[in-house]
Amino acid sequence: MEAITGKALILACSAIGAGLAMIAGIGPGIGQGFAAGKGAEAVGRQPEAQADVVRTMLLGAAVAESTGIYGLVVALILLFANPLLNLL
Amino acid sequence: MEAITGKALILACSAIGAGLAMIAGIGPGIGQGFAAGKGAEAVGRQPEAQADVVRTMLLGAAVAESTGIYGLVVALILLFANPLLNLL
Amino acid sequence: MEAITGKALILACSAIGAGLAMIAGIGPGIGQGFAAGKGAEAVGRQPEAQADVVRTMLLGAAVAESTGIYGLVVALILLFANPLLNLL
Amino acid sequence: MEAITGKALILACSAIGAGLAMIAGIGPGIGQGFAAGKGAEAVGRQPEAQADVVRTMLLGAAVAESTGIYGLVVALILLFANPLLNLL
Amino acid sequence: MEAITGKALILACSAIGAGLAMIAGIGPGIGQGFAAGKGAEAVGRQPEAQADVVRTMLLGAAVAESTGIYGLVVALILLFANPLLNLL
Amino acid sequence: MEAITGKALILACSAIGAGLAMIAGIGPGIGQGFAAGKGAEAVGRQPEAQADVVRTMLLGAAVAESTGIYGLVVALILLFANPLLNLL
Amino acid sequence: MEAITGKALILACSAIGAGLAMIAGIGPGIGQGFAAGKGAEAVGRQPEAQADVVRTMLLGAAVAESTGIYGLVVALILLFANPLLNLL
Amino acid sequence: MEAITGKALILACSAIGAGLAMIAGIGPGIGQGFAAGKGAEAVGRQPEAQADVVRTMLLGAAVAESTGIYGLVVALILLFANPLLNLL
Amino acid sequence: MEAITGKALILACSAIGAGLAMIAGIGPGIGQGFAAGKGAEAVGRQPEAQADVVRTMLLGAAVAESTGIYGLVVALILLFANPLLNLL
Amino acid sequence: MEAITGKALILACSAIGAGLAMIAGIGPGIGQGFAAGKGAEAVGRQPEAQADVVRTMLLGAAVAESTGIYGLVVALILLFANPLLNLL
Amino acid sequence: MEAITGKALILACSAIGAGLAMIAGIGPGIGQGFAAGKGAEAVGRQPEAQADVVRTMLLGAAVAESTGIYGLVVALILLFANPLLNLL
Amino acid sequence: MEAITGKALILACSAIGAGLAMIAGIGPGIGQGFAAGKGAEAVGRQPEAQADVVRTMLLGAAVAESTGIYGLVVALILLFANPLLNLL
Amino acid sequence: MEAITGKALILACSAIGAGLAMIAGIGPGIGQGFAAGKGAEAVGRQPEAQADVVRTMLLGAAVAESTGIYGLVVALILLFANPLLNLL
Amino acid sequence: MEAITGKALILACSAIGAGLAMIAGIGPGIGQGFAAGKGAEAVGRQPEAQADVVRTMLLGAAVAESTGIYGLVVALILLFANPLLNLL
Repeated sequence: MEAITGKALILACSAIGAGLAMIAGIGPGIGQGFAAGKGAEAVGRQPEAQADVVRTMLLGAAVAESTGIYGLVVALILLFANPLLNLL
Repeated sequence: MEAITGKALILACSAIGAGLAMIAGIGPGIGQGFAAGKGAEAVGRQPEAQADVVRTMLLGAAVAESTGIYGLVVALILLFANPLLNLL
Repeated sequence: MEAITGKALILACSAIGAGLAMIAGIGPGIGQGFAAGKGAEAVGRQPEAQADVVRTMLLGAAVAESTGIYGLVVALILLFANPLLNLL
Repeated sequence: MEAITGKALILACSAIGAGLAMIAGIGPGIGQGFAAGKGAEAVGRQPEAQADVVRTMLLGAAVAESTGIYGLVVALILLFANPLLNLL
Repeated sequence: MEAITGKALILACSAIGAGLAMIAGIGPGIGQGFAAGKGAEAVGRQPEAQADVVRTMLLGAAVAESTGIYGLVVALILLFANPLLNLL
Repeated sequence: MEAITGKALILACSAIGAGLAMIAGIGPGIGQGFAAGKGAEAVGRQPEAQADVVRTMLLGAAVAESTGIYGLVVALILLFANPLLNLL
Repeated sequence: MEAITGKALILACSAIGAGLAMIAGIGPGIGQGFAAGKGAEAVGRQPEAQADVVRTMLLGAAVAESTGIYGLVVALILLFANPLLNLL
Repeated sequence: MEAITGKALILACSAIGAGLAMIAGIGPGIGQGFAAGKGAEAVGRQPEAQADVVRTMLLGAAVAESTGIYGLVVALILLFANPLLNLL
Repeated sequence: MEAITGKALILACSAIGAGLAMIAGIGPGIGQGFAAGKGAEAVGRQPEAQADVVRTMLLGAAVAESTGIYGLVVALILLFANPLLNLL
Repeated sequence: MEAITGKALILACSAIGAGLAMIAGIGPGIGQGFAAGKGAEAVGRQPEAQADVVRTMLLGAAVAESTGIYGLVVALILLFANPLLNLL
Repeated sequence: MEAITGKALILACSAIGAGLAMIAGIGPGIGQGFAAGKGAEAVGRQPEAQADVVRTMLLGAAVAESTGIYGLVVALILLFANPLLNLL
Repeated sequence: MEAITGKALILACSAIGAGLAMIAGIGPGIGQGFAAGKGAEAVGRQPEAQADVVRTMLLGAAVAESTGIYGLVVALILLFANPLLNLL
Repeated sequence: MEAITGKALILACSAIGAGLAMIAGIGPGIGQGFAAGKGAEAVGRQPEAQADVVRTMLLGAAVAESTGIYGLVVALILLFANPLLNLL
Repeated sequence: MEAITGKALILACSAIGAGLAMIAGIGPGIGQGFAAGKGAEAVGRQPEAQADVVRTMLLGAAVAESTGIYGLVVALILLFANPLLNLL
């Protein structure tokens, strides 16, 4: 078996980097939960506006989702299609 | 038994990375709990709107769940199907 | 007795990773406690709606529990069925 | 007496990991205390609803307890039934 | 006198781990203090409901105490009945 | 297989840097979630103004998205078109 | 005079651990201060209920004290009756 | 292949520095999201003032964008036109 | 003059530990200041209840002081009666 | 190719320092976003005062921009006109 | 001139420890400032109660000062009467 | 080319120190943005008092600017007129 | 020129310690600013009580200043009359 | 050119220490900005009391400035009149 190579160092750092990238998920989690709570409150006040409230809430939450997805994309790239190795 | 190899370094860093990725769960935990509290409050005010409130709350919380699941997915990939090793 | 091997390094990092993964529990703990407080407040205002409030609160808290469970699952996998060793 | 072995490194990291896992207790501690405060407030307003308020509060706090217990379980596993050693 | 052994490393890390585990006490300390403040406020408003308020407050605070006790238990196990040494 | 080179060090640090850049996503996630919650609340109050509220909310959220996208761009550049290597 | 031994390492780490354990005191300090402020406010509103308010406040603060005392106990054990040395 | 040179060290630190610079994006993300939420709320109250509200909101958000752009600029300079190398 | 010994390492770590233990003072400082502010507010509203308010405030603040004193005690023990040396 | 020199060390630290300096952008980002939200709210309430509100908001935000610009200036100096090298 | 001795290590760590101990001053600074603000507010509302308000405020602030003084005391002991050296 | 000298170490640390000094800009950024928001709100309520409000806001913000400028001054001194080198 | 001695290590750590001690200034800065804001608000409501409000505010702020001065004192002692050297 | 000496180590640490000391500026920045906002709000409500409000605000902000100035003083002493060198 071979010694620690530059390739291995890059891949080990990629695993750490992927974990760091997922921490971004704290933001959308708090934000979307706030949206869900406000949405439930609004529906409780005017149940007849439920469709409109839910549509607005989901639209806003979908946008907030984006940065979480960015983190996931970067992590998956680091794991599956690690382009750094092609550069070595 | 062999010495520490590049493979072992990658796997050790993957274990740390998986733990880091789970920290993202702080966000959805706070957010969804806020949603649950607001939902319970809304139901307490208008029990007749319970079905609508709960549906809205769960819909919002399901979206907020996403970043937590992303973290779980990245952690499981790191643990079970570690693609970094194929790149070595 | 043998020297420190790659296997031992992976397992030592797994112990640290499992501890890091549990930190995610801070989120659901705060969130669900908020839900419990809001639920108790709502029941205190309309005791006749208790069943509805409690059901809503528990439903929301069950969703918020998820990221805490994800952390537990990842920690247990790291400890009992450490798949990283099969990859070595 | 023998030198530092891989086994010792794993066990030393397990002690650190167990300490990290307990930090999750910050969350439930804050959350359940919030619930207790809100419960006491609600009882003070409607003492006749005390039984209902307390039951709701305890139910919610019991759920919030879960992530603290997860941390305890992981710590105890690390300390008493350290499964990582079987994997060495 | 002997050199630093694996046993000594484990015990040194146990001392650090015990200190980390006690940090969990920040949570219950804030939460129970909130409960005490809300309880005092509620008693000040309706002194005739004091018994009920105090009982509710103590019940909730007792639950919030749990994670602090978990931390203490883990610390004491690390110090007095360090099971990691049996595993060495 | 070759030893660790300067190229490998740059690429390893790029993986860490990409992970750090994604942490910026915490900000837009919280902010856009706040916007979604406020939007749902506003729609719940005046459902007839839904189109205007949603348009405003999305416009504002699109601007807030920008810093998250910046982070993603920097991460992708680090991964796919790492210009640092051309400078070596 | 002898070189650094395992015993000395354990004792040095115990000093650090004792310092870490005292940090838990931040929690009760904030919480009990909140309770004191709320109690003073309540007494200011209904001076005739002073005895009841103070009793409730002290009862709640006594519970909140617990985690601070746990930290002190662990620190004193580490300093005076360091049981880790018996395990060496 | 050559050993690690001063050039490589500078470029590796530039990758870390670029990642650090992007963290500044947390600020505009939270701030602009707050602006979006307040804007949606204001439009919901007075839909006839929508144009004015949106213009004000965008103007303010554009200013808040600046520090995020500064971070992006510094990161891009570090990556593409790294002036530090000319100084070597 | 002798080289660095185990004794010196313990004493050096004791100095760091004493500094860490004093950080606990952040908690009581914030809490007691809150109490002082609330007390001054209450006295301003009902000057005739000053004696009662002040007594309650001081009683509560005295309890909040405790964790700060614990930290001081541990620091002084580390400095003056360092029991760790007897254990060496 | 030459070994790592003092010049290279300075330039590598300058890259890190430039990244640190940009973190100051978190402050203006949050602050100006708050200003934008408050401005939009104020315009929504009194659209006839829009010009005055916007002028005030921009004036205040321009001042808040300053510390972000300071950070940018220091970063650019570190990158382009690194005066530290003249001092070597 | 002699090499680095154990004495020098202890004294160097004492300088760091003294700096750490002063950080405790953040707490009283925030708390007493809150008290000052609340006191000024109370005096503004009832100028005739100024003497009482100020006395209460100062009494409470004096108690809050204590943990800051503890930190100062520990720092001064570390600097001027460093008892750790007697233990060497 | 020469090896790493004391001069180079000082200059490298100066680059890091300059970056640290700029972090102080977070404070004025948040504070002045708060002032801008409050100013815009006040102008929106009483447009006829605009001149007075703006003058007060700018006066206060100018004072808040000071600590940001201090940081800039220290950073520039470190970069351009590094007095530490004269002391070497 | 001589090599690094114990004296130099102590003095280098003293420079770091002095910087750490100044961080305590964050507390009084926030607290006294709060007091200034509350004082300005109170004067705006009752300009006839200005003298009383200002006196109270300054009295309270003077007390809050203390921990900042403690930090300054410790830093100056470390720099100018470093007593640690006498102990060497 | 000479090797790294104790003098150089002290001066390098002084540069870091000066940067740390400036971080204290976060506090006054936030606090004085709060004061500015509250002052502008108060002037907006009672423009006729402007002179009094501004005087109070500036007086309070001047006091809050102090800890920022302390940090600047310590940093300048470290840079220009580094007394630590006289002690070497």
